[in-house]
Order: sequence, then structure tokens, then C-alpha cells
Amino acid sequence: MNRVAARAAIHISAVFALYLSAAMLLPAGVDLYHGNEDWQVFAASAAITAAAALGVAAATHGNTPPASTRFGFLLVNLLWMTMAVAGALPLLISSLELSLAEAFFESVSAITTTGSTVITGLDDKPPGVLLWRSILQWMGGLGVIALGLFLLPFLKVGGVTYFKIESSDIEDKPFERFATFAASLLGIYAMLTVACAICYLLAGMTGFDALNHAMTTMSTGGMSTHDASFGQFANSPHILWIATVFMFVGGLPFSILILFAIRGRYDALRDPQIRVFAGYCIVFAVAVAVYLRVTAEKPFLEALTHSAFNFVSIITTTGYASSDYSAWGPLAVACFFVATFLGGCSGSTAGGIKAYRFLVLFELTMNGLRKLVYPNSVITIRYGDRVVDADMQRAVVLFISAFFVIWAIVAILLGATGLDLITAVTGSLTAMTNVGPGLGDIIGPAGNFASLPDSSKWFLSMAMLLGRLEILVVLVIFTPTFWSR
Amino acid sequence: MNRVAARAAIHISAVFALYLSAAMLLPAGVDLYHGNEDWQVFAASAAITAAAALGVAAATHGNTPPASTRFGFLLVNLLWMTMAVAGALPLLISSLELSLAEAFFESVSAITTTGSTVITGLDDKPPGVLLWRSILQWMGGLGVIALGLFLLPFLKVGGVTYFKIESSDIEDKPFERFATFAASLLGIYAMLTVACAICYLLAGMTGFDALNHAMTTMSTGGMSTHDASFGQFANSPHILWIATVFMFVGGLPFSILILFAIRGRYDALRDPQIRVFAGYCIVFAVAVAVYLRVTAEKPFLEALTHSAFNFVSIITTTGYASSDYSAWGPLAVACFFVATFLGGCSGSTAGGIKAYRFLVLFELTMNGLRKLVYPNSVITIRYGDRVVDADMQRAVVLFISAFFVIWAIVAILLGATGLDLITAVTGSLTAMTNVGPGLGDIIGPAGNFASLPDSSKWFLSMAMLLGRLEILVVLVIFTPTFWSR
Repeated sequence: MNRVAARAAIHISAVFALYLSAAMLLPAGVDLYHGNEDWQVFAASAAITAAAALGVAAATHGNTPPASTRFGFLLVNLLWMTMAVAGALPLLISSLELSLAEAFFESVSAITTTGSTVITGLDDKPPGVLLWRSILQWMGGLGVIALGLFLLPFLKVGGVTYFKIESSDIEDKPFERFATFAASLLGIYAMLTVACAICYLLAGMTGFDALNHAMTTMSTGGMSTHDASFGQFANSPHILWIATVFMFVGGLPFSILILFAIRGRYDALRDPQIRVFAGYCIVFAVAVAVYLRVTAEKPFLEALTHSAFNFVSIITTTGYASSDYSAWGPLAVACFFVATFLGGCSGSTAGGIKAYRFLVLFELTMNGLRKLVYPNSVITIRYGDRVVDADMQRAVVLFISAFFVIWAIVAILLGATGLDLITAVTGSLTAMTNVGPGLGDIIGPAGNFASLPDSSKWFLSMAMLLGRLEILVVLVIFTPTFWSR
Repeated sequence: MNRVAARAAIHISAVFALYLSAAMLLPAGVDLYHGNEDWQVFAASAAITAAAALGVAAATHGNTPPASTRFGFLLVNLLWMTMAVAGALPLLISSLELSLAEAFFESVSAITTTGSTVITGLDDKPPGVLLWRSILQWMGGLGVIALGLFLLPFLKVGGVTYFKIESSDIEDKPFERFATFAASLLGIYAMLTVACAICYLLAGMTGFDALNHAMTTMSTGGMSTHDASFGQFANSPHILWIATVFMFVGGLPFSILILFAIRGRYDALRDPQIRVFAGYCIVFAVAVAVYLRVTAEKPFLEALTHSAFNFVSIITTTGYASSDYSAWGPLAVACFFVATFLGGCSGSTAGGIKAYRFLVLFELTMNGLRKLVYPNSVITIRYGDRVVDADMQRAVVLFISAFFVIWAIVAILLGATGLDLITAVTGSLTAMTNVGPGLGDIIGPAGNFASLPDSSKWFLSMAMLLGRLEILVVLVIFTPTFWSR
């Protein structure tokens, strides 16, 4: 790591913090409009953030270094830490009376689009705070897509965009079109959010609910303005299906949506990961709907509405719940546990292991088995009609191995803070996959993270950040190699 | 697959069944000696098995085919299925009144050295049945070591022997020394069992208990002649420490023990997997002993005795329990959950993921992270002072990926049979790693598999066989490639 690169990364993060301070003026305005004194919290936070950002930015001004992978890794980590700290500031000094661990947890949960919350009594909280959580999720979602589309492939950590940029007609000049791509991304993301909000509004939500839920739906974040989450709207199949559709779209690769939108390329929708993602959403939703039809004797359509909503919510790592699905019976609970691992597509707002990794893994397994029978056969791993190169194979395998090891370590750490096995194991999992709810009485779909000890909250915050930055992006920072000159 | 190979594999399995029928005469003799009518069960089983074996052997007599990997895979699967079926026969027709699913489960649990049981009231059961379970475990353990030492490396499925045979002074002619190696293995395994039995006897066990527990200790099997398992001997630190030492030895690579015993090669003990295996045994045992000292205010030595016994039992995948460790508090429970994944060394009787895979995985991760920083660096994966070739890397990665996917599938299947989440998730895990006890009220260390529905028992039997045959050996049989001509 050289000093120029480190300084430049800090500088960019400080400039980014200025934008965050500007974003704080939105909830300040809303609180002021509602005559709520909390507007001062956001105004003060904006001032503090801006002052700190300006100071750091001035102190780190200088030449921009040539782009390097190490610069990229450091920058990503710094940007997310900046967002986490700036996001926590208003929550910490607000009327919510959160501890430092709680404010940090809530902020990290928001920006990583996890959606777990430590706040109870959401329905009565000042609108500014509720809006701030939604804004953090929306910005976090945008950041994650940008990361997955533009940065991770460059850093060779993974992502299918990689293939898609190579495969599209801009093959030879991906960075020339960067500005178009970034503008398209922002445009599509914003338009989808507006469309979602309008649908919610038409289906009967209040304006404020529609806006907040649209932001946390499109970012597959899952924070709600109600303690009951989507249980609040459980009697409106329209609202549930609108959410299901937009969550599903949020789990699709945005590179594909961009190609589709700006070029009308229908063939882009044939990306194999989309079929896998849609496949496991449908299989789980239908299987458990049938199971509910048989065991709970619910009408099939009602069962399908709730099954589809909750499985799409978990698989896209949104984390809304329309009912306490942990009471749906043992098969359903085991399915929700497994669904928590899956995740959506690469280059989407979804977390988890993700569909393209399962595809690559399946190909690796089938080819490995073939090679056991024919030891001299040559292995070619394919993703759709393309060859998966060694870098990509290694990134997939590294991610999955690191995922399970870190999951085990975090579960032990959570056990050490006193959590029971189900809470420790599913808490660690739901944090790393950025889903939101775990299983069990405490952090299940009907539960809340408020009652956990502060130490658990710190470990969970760490796990959410690790999961959101695809694990390797964080781990690499802790290797001696990274810091050697 | 050609017909000659398939016929020859069936022929060898039939000859093997003849040996199994001979083994049934041992429990028959014991029951006869004790004046127990169950001797007829074993005599009849021996006669049926022998008759069937002779018939099949005669029908499949012919030329031996040239050794091929497909022949090897088929043979391993057939041998284990033969053992499972022959092992179940006396249990099915005995006075235990087991269902078909239960007799098969108990037999598979024994031969895979898992040690889970569906029999309650063990203390009052006829000695023949108890001895038969122990004999099955002892034979299963021997089979697993032979598999790991001689067959899996040849089939390129994994195992460190591979390295060790190459590294020893018999580098150029591994098969010439095969007979010496096999004889040494049998000799060392038998001598260790006798030594263990004598120690147990001297420490106060009855002769029958000492013999049975020595067989299930050395095979890291874990079946007991008492419902309370080693809770029966919980007040004898001597017995607990004897078991701890011999279980630990059972988790060591037998190739190393052979090299050490017949050549006095101390340097063989420096195999890196031994250090990793010993390392995690010590870390877990000491950490939880300290935790018990602090939280339960037990004397440290007593805490260490039980912590070491139970962690070595789980990590070596033996599965004895000296007390209900699920009541030791959240940190301990989370540690036992994670310990269930670990396993011992390659070429031992232990199951699980195993120490050498963690070593290779760690090297892969560290080198992968280095390559993220220096994209053009050349990656060399090392195991100790040797290079891990691509076949070995692939086998490790394939195993771990397949392991987690199958774990999830079996957990869902168990959920479908009505088991709660903890039972489904830890039951699937403990079966695949051949440990024995799971967690939770039903199949925890103080529990028993008897109350599970028969459907769960079939799925668990499948998982135990999959885990014991290192997953890939079974999966490969189900690929179309395997059966193509």
C-alpha cells in the first residue's frame, strides 16, 4: 500500500461524506414540516458530518493515484465505513436513546440492506428517523449495485457483470461507456422506486408508507415503518403481490436491466443466473404453498400469496415478513433456513451466496465427477455459453469456503455473548447474507434484535459488513500482503 | 461401465458377505454361552447370509477385470451396501422388534462408525446384539481406514496418504508393499484395540464392557452398551482419560502410525494435519473448560476432564457423551455445533470435513487473497513441504461444496418428515459427519434416535452412507457418465 493511494481513498470518502451530510437535510425537512423537534438532530448531524468531511478532505487533498486493485479494495472498505458511521450519527443523538452499539447496528443494517432492527415501537417514531433508515437502505442498495457492476469485476472478486460487459457490444471499451452505464443505473433504480411507490399508493398505502416501503423494497433492504413489517398489510393481497414483484426485480442483475432498457435487448434476459434465481423462488413458493394447503387447510391462492411473498423476501434478502412463518410447520421452517443462504443475482441489491455461484459450483461438481470417471478428461467450466476462467472459479470457491468458515466463527462468538444455538446460528447467517430476520423466538420473523446484548450487536454488525462486501473485499485488507510496499 | 467389471464387483462383495456370515458366529457363541435364545437369530442370519453369498458368488464367477476407477467406485459402494444389509439382518429378526428402517439405520450407523442408536434399554439387551453392534463398528472402522489409505487416493477422491506414500521410501513401488501395509494396519488396529480394552479393564470396567467399548473407541464409532453412554463412567476420570487418549489416536492417520511403528520414523509424526487436528482439540477443550470453570464454578481439572472427553469424542466423530453437554451454556453448545463439522485426520477412522481439507482450504484462501492484491502472482498451494496438485485441490473443493449442499437438502427432507429445525439441521449434520449425537432435546447427547419417524431414519441412513464414503464416491455412481460404455 502506498501513501498516495491511502490518502486519495480517504479523500474520496470525505467527499462522499459531504453528500451524506446533504442527504441528512431530507429527514430534517420532513421533521420540520411535521413540527417534530427531531429536525435539530438531523441538522446537527449534517453540520457535524459536513465539518468533519471538509476537514478531512482538505487535509488529504492531493494528486489522484493511478487506479490499482489495492486502491480499489481500500476505497470500498472506507466508503462503507463512512456510510456506517455517518448513518449512525443521527440515530445516536436522536430521541431513540440507542446505545453506540445499537446506533451502529441499525446504521450498518440499513446501508448493507439487511433490514434487521433494534428499534421497537416503530409506528410511533418521528418520521425523520423512519425516513433516514429508508434513505440509508436506498443509498446502500444503489452502492451495492454499483459495486457489483463496476468495481468487483475489476477487482476480480466475482460478479457476472464481468461476463456481461465482455459479451455485450461494448466489449472492447467497457470504461468508455461507464458514464452512460452509471447514469442508466441511477435512472432505472430511481424509476423503479417511483413505480413501486405509486403501485403501493394505489393499492392503499399512505403516501409516507408507500415512499418508505418503495425505497426499502427496491433496495431489497426490508426495513419497515411498522413493528409488524408487512404483517401490517397482510390482508391486502395486492400490496403483497406488488412487493413480491418489485423485490424479485430488485434481485435481478441491473446490468441486464440496463441492457434491456437502453438497448431493448431481450436476449440479455436469458442470462442463466436469472433462470436459476427464478427457479428456486418458484420451487420454494409453490412447494410450501402446497404444504400449507394440505397441513393448514388454507385456500391455495391465499397460501401462495404468503408463501411467494415471504420466500421472495428471504431469497432476495429483503427480509420483510407478512406473517410469522416460523409457525408454518417443520418443512416450511427448514425451507426458510435453506432459503436464507441462496440470494439473488450478481449485480443486484440482493446478498447471500447468489445464483451464479451455485451455477458455477454445479458445473464444477459435475465436471469434477466426470473427471473422477475419466481422469484424463479436460475440464471446461461453462456459464451459459461462455467459459468460466480460472480467476472466476477461484473467486467462487474462495467466497463459499470463507462464507462457511466465517459463519461458524461468528456463531461461536454469538454463543459466547450468551445467545442460544438457533439465535446464534441463524443470526450469524442472516447477518452475513444481509437477509434480516433469523429463526427462533428472539430474532425470528415476529422478533426483533433489540433484546440482544450490545456485544452480539457488534459481532452482527461486523458480519453484515463482511457479507455485504462479499467477504473477500474485507478479508484482503487484513492480510500482511495488502500493506506491504 | 462394462459388464465384466460390474460382475466382478458383485462377486467380490458376495465373497465379502461370506466373511460377514462367519463374523455372525461370534455373537451367536456369546449368546449361547450366556444361555440366551438369541443365539438362534445369529445362527440363522449366518446361514441365510452364507447361502445368499454363495449363490451370488457362484452366479458371478469369472475373470477378474483390469483395475479401473469405475470398478473401484462400484466396488466400494457395493461393499458398504453389503455390510449394511448383512449387518441389519440379525437386528431385524432379533427380539428387539425393530422395523426395517430401524434395523437398517442401526446397521448403517454401526458400519459407518456413526454410533447413533434407535435402541433404548441397551443395558438389558442380550449380549449378542450388543457385541454385534460393536463388531460392526470395529469392522467398519477397519474398512474406512483401508478405504482412506489404499483406495481413495487411487480414485483421486482425496486423502493425504497419497502424499505420504509418495513421500516415504517406497515411493516408486507403492503396490509392491501393499501386503505389508495391509498386514501392519490390521496388526496395529487390533493391538490398539486390545491395549484399550486392557486399560478399560484395569480402570474398572467389566470384561464385556471393556471389550465392547474398546472396539467402539478405536473405530471412533461411539456405540455403547449403556443407554447413558459414557455417563455410566462419568465418575471415573481414569476411564474418561483412557477413552480420550484412544479416541484421539483413532483420529490420527494410520499411514503415519504404520510408518512410525514399522520403521520408527518419528518425522512422520510431523504431518501438518496432525498439528491442526491436535490444535483444534486442545483449543476447544481448554476454552470450554475455562468457560465451565467460570460459569458453573466446577473445579478446573474436573471441567477439563469432561470438556476434553466430549470435544475429542465429537471432533474424532466418535460420539460418546459423558454428560449432557447441551446444558453447559450457549458458548459450549455453539462450540459443539461447530466441532461437529471438523473431523480428524485423513486415513483414520474419523469422519467429518477433516483437518487436511482445512489446511488446503486455508492455503487456497490465503493465496487467493494474495492474488487479489497481486493479480499476476503465481499460486502454489502447499501442504507442509509438498505441493498440492490440481487434482487434490479440486477434490477438496468438490467435497466441501457437495457437503454443504447435501447437508441443506437432507435438512429439508428431515423437515418434511416433521422434525423441528434444530433436530433436522444437526441430525443431517451429525449423520453426514458420522459423529453420532446431534443437538436439541430429541437427538442431543442425552437423547436417542428411536422416536423419529421411519422416513427420517431412511434419510439419515442415506446421509451416513454418503458421509462415510466421502460423498463423491456415492455421487459419482449417479452420474450418466459413470454408466456410459
